[in-house]
Amino acid sequence: MQDIYLDNSATTAVCKEAVERMVQVMTVSYGNPSSLHQKGIEAEDEMDRARRAVAARLNCTEREIVFTSGGTEANNLALFGGTAAKKRAGKRIVVTQLEHSSVYETADALEQQGFEVIRLAPGPDGKIPVQSIYEAVNEDTILVSMMLVNNETGAIQPVEHIKKAVKKAGAPALIHCDAVQAFGKMSCRPAALGVDLMTVSSHKIHGPKGAGALYIRKGTRILPRQFGGSQEQAIRPGTEGVPSIAGFGAAVEALGDTVQHAAEASKLWNALWEAAEKLPGVRINSPKDALPYVFNLSVEGIRSETMLHFLAGKGIYVSSGSACSKGALSRPLAAMGLDRKTVDSALRISFSRFNRMEHVEALVAGIEEGIARLRK
Amino acid sequence: MQDIYLDNSATTAVCKEAVERMVQVMTVSYGNPSSLHQKGIEAEDEMDRARRAVAARLNCTEREIVFTSGGTEANNLALFGGTAAKKRAGKRIVVTQLEHSSVYETADALEQQGFEVIRLAPGPDGKIPVQSIYEAVNEDTILVSMMLVNNETGAIQPVEHIKKAVKKAGAPALIHCDAVQAFGKMSCRPAALGVDLMTVSSHKIHGPKGAGALYIRKGTRILPRQFGGSQEQAIRPGTEGVPSIAGFGAAVEALGDTVQHAAEASKLWNALWEAAEKLPGVRINSPKDALPYVFNLSVEGIRSETMLHFLAGKGIYVSSGSACSKGALSRPLAAMGLDRKTVDSALRISFSRFNRMEHVEALVAGIEEGIARLRK
Repeated sequence: MQDIYLDNSATTAVCKEAVERMVQVMTVSYGNPSSLHQKGIEAEDEMDRARRAVAARLNCTEREIVFTSGGTEANNLALFGGTAAKKRAGKRIVVTQLEHSSVYETADALEQQGFEVIRLAPGPDGKIPVQSIYEAVNEDTILVSMMLVNNETGAIQPVEHIKKAVKKAGAPALIHCDAVQAFGKMSCRPAALGVDLMTVSSHKIHGPKGAGALYIRKGTRILPRQFGGSQEQAIRPGTEGVPSIAGFGAAVEALGDTVQHAAEASKLWNALWEAAEKLPGVRINSPKDALPYVFNLSVEGIRSETMLHFLAGKGIYVSSGSACSKGALSRPLAAMGLDRKTVDSALRISFSRFNRMEHVEALVAGIEEGIARLRK
Repeated sequence: MQDIYLDNSATTAVCKEAVERMVQVMTVSYGNPSSLHQKGIEAEDEMDRARRAVAARLNCTEREIVFTSGGTEANNLALFGGTAAKKRAGKRIVVTQLEHSSVYETADALEQQGFEVIRLAPGPDGKIPVQSIYEAVNEDTILVSMMLVNNETGAIQPVEHIKKAVKKAGAPALIHCDAVQAFGKMSCRPAALGVDLMTVSSHKIHGPKGAGALYIRKGTRILPRQFGGSQEQAIRPGTEGVPSIAGFGAAVEALGDTVQHAAEASKLWNALWEAAEKLPGVRINSPKDALPYVFNLSVEGIRSETMLHFLAGKGIYVSSGSACSKGALSRPLAAMGLDRKTVDSALRISFSRFNRMEHVEALVAGIEEGIARLRK
């Protein structure tokens, strides 16, 4: 039985280019980038190469990239570091109810510190209404954080409107975008989107877990969260996780033409949409214009976990909600106004460029069989 | 020319056991440990295996291990998280002038927050006098942090006395030990040492950079620094860096008999001592009872960097001070009372279990030649 992995928004298999680079880094270029001798220089070269790759994809300079241990750390750094730098300028923070918990719960922690947190609600389509951004951002707002693509539905968010709202309000706000699900799958250019801070991650694009980056626009000041050394411009000190970062860089280099990959993914996504519409009692929770790598549906009368395990028994791997919430009720889906039963029966199917049409066909057949066997 | 790598306290080459485990994790057991299906379970099994290995070496339970992205993050978590949990109990923090910058600079940051920081000075032998611990710890002390082995001289610190000093003062203090340089090279048992928190790292013991752990004694409460998920008991949330952590675990499993390795290292260390004593104008900065993996010496009249590059030209890699300080003057050596010229000409030679006597011989010959050619 061949595995059919359709949980690529949770994490991905590491591509061979990344694995090879990492093995080389660990066994040959294994020095500490801070060491002054040849072994250190080799390791620093590997850091530089990875930085060039990430910067090229974001269309930014290498100096604007700070590597972290992953998306969660980058999101924490953006929110804590950004608000710490701006705390004298105001006290409002605007986030959305759709955010990943590494943004959402960090906002909660900032609220406990005395900041005022506004949490924008999505419409039933899973998207934040543009008007609500303008209503929430005021002259006291020091940070706005919005994800580019929702990890559970694939809904693309109106990030490009934030800068206008901030200007209109005369707000001193930094604009942060969690682009973890978007990076490598659609255009992610912070300058074009008008954001000051952008989070990207390695392990959603066939790089290893344990690496991520925060884009920090030139001239934007944030305070570090971690101390001890001058690595990553002293914004993120500590010996760099060179193997994972080099693997991240290799995975970025291997991304290829993301427009073409997205066109291929759209074929799978549209095929799944057409099939899902015909399945009895299946509701599609993703909007029609979602990122074509994430598809969310609910199967009436069958709990997510039940269907997930039924499919897993056939070697087909999908997710109930996001991996990070591990069985907890989906906050984004509930925020969209879905009733509890629909949320409880939601499945997330997520593609990568390595998926093929036969994977969708096997999935649809599996869900169909599951409906016949599991529904009471 | 064969590389002779004698900078193992900066970082190490990754052992084949760790590389193999990591490749397996990245290409087969690549799931997200939070995923409910088989791929997630496989990844969680890898986390469990690494946790068992680290816990076994520390003679503690698996629940007492929290994985981090490295030693710097673990040290930051211990100091920030420990003082945040204890902030109502007092305001004094005791550290030493020998600490790695990830402890030392974090203490500086805490001082700026209003804590009172006492920085114990070492004697000329590079060791903290026991009496000074008793004098510094008072009933207002909430945290004491002392490294077990100094990274520049190898001097072993009197960590086991802290608990008595804390008891005597009736202090509410947590006791933290940065054991990054000691772990895998000597006995590191937090319970035996009487410490509540202990930092260990992967890349000093032939594991990959990008993984570390904080031991948190059962019943000890510290607050998280990072938010977003329930991984690592919600003390360190975020998708785990499974490849690096699994590699860390494999490197720990491969450590073998550290007592026997230390006996072998002692032979190299003693041979280096004997040779260094005979070299003209060479001062040995390590104490005679240092950990036999770290050796610090100063070559009169030749700046550290000059000798370092001369040796590097022969494929012999050593360090000037610690890698992390990248050319800055050594704080620990200065604190020992060494004059500026001696500090400026210091070299650190650091072994691992893979070094052999011929490496020491080549090093000594290299230094000898360097003295003849470089000294004016």
